[in-house]
Amino acid sequence: MSEFLQVANAAKEASRLLAPLPRAAKDTALRAIADALVARAEEIVEANAADVAKARQDGTSEAMIDRLRLDVPRIGKIADAVREIAELPDPVGEVVRGSTLPNGLELRQIRVPLGVIGIIYEGRPNVTVDAAALCLKSGNGVLLRGSSSAYSSNTALVKIMQEALEATDVPAGAVQLVPGLTHESAKELMRARGLVDVLIPRGGASLINRVVEESSVPVIETGVGVCHVYVDAAADQERALAILVNAKAQRVSVCNSAETLLVHEAIAAEFVPKAMAALTEAGVTVHGDPAFAAVGGAAVVPVTEEEYSTEYLSYDIAAAVVPSLEGAVAHITRYGSGHTDAIVTDSQTAAKRFVALVDSAAVAVNASTRFTDGGEFGFGAEIGISTQKLHARGPMGLPELTSTKFVYVGEGHVRG
Amino acid sequence: MSEFLQVANAAKEASRLLAPLPRAAKDTALRAIADALVARAEEIVEANAADVAKARQDGTSEAMIDRLRLDVPRIGKIADAVREIAELPDPVGEVVRGSTLPNGLELRQIRVPLGVIGIIYEGRPNVTVDAAALCLKSGNGVLLRGSSSAYSSNTALVKIMQEALEATDVPAGAVQLVPGLTHESAKELMRARGLVDVLIPRGGASLINRVVEESSVPVIETGVGVCHVYVDAAADQERALAILVNAKAQRVSVCNSAETLLVHEAIAAEFVPKAMAALTEAGVTVHGDPAFAAVGGAAVVPVTEEEYSTEYLSYDIAAAVVPSLEGAVAHITRYGSGHTDAIVTDSQTAAKRFVALVDSAAVAVNASTRFTDGGEFGFGAEIGISTQKLHARGPMGLPELTSTKFVYVGEGHVRG
Repeated sequence: MSEFLQVANAAKEASRLLAPLPRAAKDTALRAIADALVARAEEIVEANAADVAKARQDGTSEAMIDRLRLDVPRIGKIADAVREIAELPDPVGEVVRGSTLPNGLELRQIRVPLGVIGIIYEGRPNVTVDAAALCLKSGNGVLLRGSSSAYSSNTALVKIMQEALEATDVPAGAVQLVPGLTHESAKELMRARGLVDVLIPRGGASLINRVVEESSVPVIETGVGVCHVYVDAAADQERALAILVNAKAQRVSVCNSAETLLVHEAIAAEFVPKAMAALTEAGVTVHGDPAFAAVGGAAVVPVTEEEYSTEYLSYDIAAAVVPSLEGAVAHITRYGSGHTDAIVTDSQTAAKRFVALVDSAAVAVNASTRFTDGGEFGFGAEIGISTQKLHARGPMGLPELTSTKFVYVGEGHVRG
Repeated sequence: MSEFLQVANAAKEASRLLAPLPRAAKDTALRAIADALVARAEEIVEANAADVAKARQDGTSEAMIDRLRLDVPRIGKIADAVREIAELPDPVGEVVRGSTLPNGLELRQIRVPLGVIGIIYEGRPNVTVDAAALCLKSGNGVLLRGSSSAYSSNTALVKIMQEALEATDVPAGAVQLVPGLTHESAKELMRARGLVDVLIPRGGASLINRVVEESSVPVIETGVGVCHVYVDAAADQERALAILVNAKAQRVSVCNSAETLLVHEAIAAEFVPKAMAALTEAGVTVHGDPAFAAVGGAAVVPVTEEEYSTEYLSYDIAAAVVPSLEGAVAHITRYGSGHTDAIVTDSQTAAKRFVALVDSAAVAVNASTRFTDGGEFGFGAEIGISTQKLHARGPMGLPELTSTKFVYVGEGHVRG
């Protein structure tokens, strides 16, 4: 048996013991993990130093190194996040629906853990702990496959979590790091149908596409956000400017930031110059189509069609003038990623139509795209934002890490 | 563009027009389909005769030919089923949850169609109409890929449905037959990510496995049922006999019929002879392990390990004696398909433990496995029974053919 299969089998076995545990057992285990992370912070910092040194050697940018770096205060925050997850309600055991059937059978549909969740992720080592905590809270085992750049940190974090679980009712095997960083081990994870119940890739478009293409395990796609702000003919333009700048520039590196501005042609001559001024002041470069450039002035950089479907994740925004609301919807349908698209309008009819026609995880009316977030929605925590339609769409909290089971109880009922 | 892609694009385009239609428009279209099927029944019978003749030429069994055959009364029943689907509530537009966030944003999660649903199925041509009607009712376009044995019938049925839609608000392109029956067209369907939102294979284990392995479109696995009846030490044995015979023999060709009997060793000597008598009387051959044979008498045929994970779909049942409830659960975990497993017991503790430990779409307590069915559960109609954990598990009705969309409405809200 490969090293991967040993680990995956261990996670599966542990998940069977974990699934029926009551909330108190899981919360105690999460607090033990938080305590251990704080108590062994120096050990984590040391392991992380090896990753940082290697990244520096590899010529990684300082911005990326900063994302990778762990220090004692950051570890404290990671532990706090685990404690917050312990405070959240347990989704497992919730009766989703139930009835007594006409024949007297008592039918209930009950929330149960998925089993083993595989997470393939890039970048920051805090995801290692965050994802593990969310999976444990929802009664699932977890197989973690982080990036090679954080392997030393992730190894230390998983070891500390496992050792913390030893003293609790949650089996230590429920949290596993996928051994090695070979393509082979990623491939094994993606083909482990039956052992792994769902794979959640967290990262850029290329990672997600590769997982979707190669995986026979069901996948939940997350996080690619080509979000649009459409400024309608009937928009309150001051609101539109505030929403536009917030959606683009409040934090540029996240999936719910705006990447494209669409302006109705009826107001383009009036609105575009104001938008250019506001965006320029916010440090944003605007890549516009000819119609946009015609009213936007010399600061408008020509846009390519490819840019319309690309996440800049930077102080850049694509821009186009559209002939109508339907034209905006057609643009979004063609180039968007189905994450979040906003309309700014005072027309109830336009808002209703936009909401009906835009086929995205979230549609914002007179609000910034930046609100599409588990925390903002009040879900308490999120494992990612699904841009697919199956199982979960939009911010995924703890209930999205569960399945359901039908239970029916009779008194010798047979079917006639 | 391949013929498949033309058809898939047409379905996608039509699905965008169909998605926002109100219930009345969809119900009218369904009734138009039902009327057209009845009015043009002779045409369908004629097309079907070609399939039947070909099947006979190919040496197909009479039982299979009977499943394939359409006559006027059967077509009437198919039309009635469409009318029943028109009567069901529309899942689209349901507000799944909603709240006003602390910042005043109004958040709603609304049920929306999935988009385009691909169905790959074997056997009976009634599935063509049934699946199309369920997809239309839930606002989805549908790509139908039936078996070659029913190609002539399916072509006629789809043509009649499309022509019936011409006179309604539902675009005729929303119902499409995948052209040709080559492996290439099935492959194109399975790789049509972005055009097809979900694939539902309906058929045997080998079809389903192939789709799961090859598809980059998200798949919902359905229908393979290796269902167990576990007779506990604390069982009411008369109930156990009635449930066992019903689960096995009331209808042997369906996925929720029982394929394996597990008996607690404490009652084996007493119960097994009674079970043998009852099963034999129902015409069932019992394939038992040595411990079962030791008390079951000469009529017990030796079982092979492979049989434990096979759907007989016939008057055969595997049987084993288990040392404990945990032993029964271990057997089910190892060999089951996660469809439906039943316990017969008068012990509340045993029932609770079995429900907690068995990880299947449905768990029955003192009831036949045959109740796992959308109709029996009161869902009105079902497109299949999901044996996977993502998106939908167990009988899938109309809501399971939808996704959701978050809509949030503000008054110029920006994130701080």
